[in-house]
Amino acid sequence: MNPPFCRMAVIGLGLLGGSVALAARACVPGIMTSGFDSDPAVRARAREIGLADHIAETALEAVAGADLVVLCVPVGAMLAAGQAIASGLAAGVVVTDVGSSKAAVARALAEALPGVCVIPSHPVAGTEQSGPDAAFATLLRGRWCIVTPPADADAEKLARLISFWEALGARCETMDAEHHDRVLAITSHLPHLIAYTIVGTASDLEAVTQSEVIKYSAGGFRDFTRIAASDPTMWRDVFLSNREAVLEMLQRFTEDLTELQKAIRKGDGDALFDTFTRTRAVRRSIIEMGQDDARPDFGRSDHGDAGAITIAGTAIPPRP
Amino acid sequence: MNPPFCRMAVIGLGLLGGSVALAARACVPGIMTSGFDSDPAVRARAREIGLADHIAETALEAVAGADLVVLCVPVGAMLAAGQAIASGLAAGVVVTDVGSSKAAVARALAEALPGVCVIPSHPVAGTEQSGPDAAFATLLRGRWCIVTPPADADAEKLARLISFWEALGARCETMDAEHHDRVLAITSHLPHLIAYTIVGTASDLEAVTQSEVIKYSAGGFRDFTRIAASDPTMWRDVFLSNREAVLEMLQRFTEDLTELQKAIRKGDGDALFDTFTRTRAVRRSIIEMGQDDARPDFGRSDHGDAGAITIAGTAIPPRP
Repeated sequence: MNPPFCRMAVIGLGLLGGSVALAARACVPGIMTSGFDSDPAVRARAREIGLADHIAETALEAVAGADLVVLCVPVGAMLAAGQAIASGLAAGVVVTDVGSSKAAVARALAEALPGVCVIPSHPVAGTEQSGPDAAFATLLRGRWCIVTPPADADAEKLARLISFWEALGARCETMDAEHHDRVLAITSHLPHLIAYTIVGTASDLEAVTQSEVIKYSAGGFRDFTRIAASDPTMWRDVFLSNREAVLEMLQRFTEDLTELQKAIRKGDGDALFDTFTRTRAVRRSIIEMGQDDARPDFGRSDHGDAGAITIAGTAIPPRP
Repeated sequence: MNPPFCRMAVIGLGLLGGSVALAARACVPGIMTSGFDSDPAVRARAREIGLADHIAETALEAVAGADLVVLCVPVGAMLAAGQAIASGLAAGVVVTDVGSSKAAVARALAEALPGVCVIPSHPVAGTEQSGPDAAFATLLRGRWCIVTPPADADAEKLARLISFWEALGARCETMDAEHHDRVLAITSHLPHLIAYTIVGTASDLEAVTQSEVIKYSAGGFRDFTRIAASDPTMWRDVFLSNREAVLEMLQRFTEDLTELQKAIRKGDGDALFDTFTRTRAVRRSIIEMGQDDARPDFGRSDHGDAGAITIAGTAIPPRP
């Protein structure tokens, strides 16, 4: 089978962009990769650690001749990133992105790139780290990548884009952008909002010191701090761009929380017990579906600290 | 140095009780251990896997001759557990517990055991598993154990109790029960309440299927499901027994969440960005204080899958 693309340009070289570039180099035979980031320091670092074959000095230079462009900038910067590359795109190019909300991105890129084949994507992968040094080639391995093609998307180009993500180790699903935004509002955006909130609440307390909060965080709080350490710019843009769906899920969450609050106030142990029993079953389903792991380290040692792995027939060396 | 205690009885042989028994056998030279659980199936299983030297058929039989009794039952069962052992306690015994709220436990045990030396404890350790099979000898290793001695506690007995927890690998702090309850309300109880809530909210949605929620849970939701898989009986009792502090923290959380909700609705990106930046710093402090780990598996592979480890000079074999 021919590789799906021959020349890829990545715009934005943070955790996601850097990882996509590294993974493409490792997994797509013969692909040429170029990269650009608006931050000169990031470009310099990307050159040092070899994220792509060529780190360009402008976005236009990066996309010249590319048959695939992957925009890896915060959702709020998509319009500007699209405008910056518009005049330099080759005929027949496929433009995609890795943004966490999709309807707003689809609108922004349709505006910036009229007549261009734009097929938004969302690889559901990441860590709480950010920046080029956080990138690693296996970030997408075994992760879902949701592709949200517009109704009139070119079928052959869509198929090549899916092949590309699969070559990088991801499993693809397609759905429309609006549905994506509601699914991710509950599975990702609301959990982040709540984690940010509780970590903020804890740091504002007077009766409990910061050092006590940190010392005893193993009781549950610690997991929230990990989520609440994610990139602030990215998440600001997610909430602003997926506002409606996030507010809808937040409304439901608040109603449910109020009900539990009432049960606590009234001392209604049965209501609490029933809720807590029901939620346990969700966890079991997640483990059965292989989306997490019951082992003490949650199988997270699968990436990063392992030896060389093979994706799509190509060995990927471990991170240095 | 002499071992702090010679005969220990553990009442309640779930994750915590089983782990305390295993750890004592491994770490306290010469200690004799007996155990009891009100569930006959748990007693049978505890015998099979050898959680203690002797599994008794009654609580009274278990505590006979013990100089340390550790109550490892849900907080709501403490009063009954105390009453069940009252007539069989040896002179000079120290009674402690492992409950997650402390003021209510102190009251219950003072009522059940007048004149007995009761010094409540809370080892801040656990997993989302429960039952005797979830127990392991290193659960307390490197964890904080908060001891909440009453004002008139015998200093020598308190010192021996602290030595005991330290022998099991824990680091001890003492504070009063009310302060403990507020600290844990924010670091543990509220995070659990919120995790239970959002997992419940997600399973009630009509527009998003359960299988979508589970599939895309890696976006953040997954971490909440792990917390929300914790033992329902234990957590019902925690919320009922630490009602005031939990409701206070919940009130503050709700106010903060309302503020972020308003920022999203108004499109106030600066307010969101500021909050998200502030919370990142808390995460950094937690990693610097060694309460978590920046590695991809969060250092969780430290327990369970390692080889033999040594605590307090005694080698503990790995779990089978």
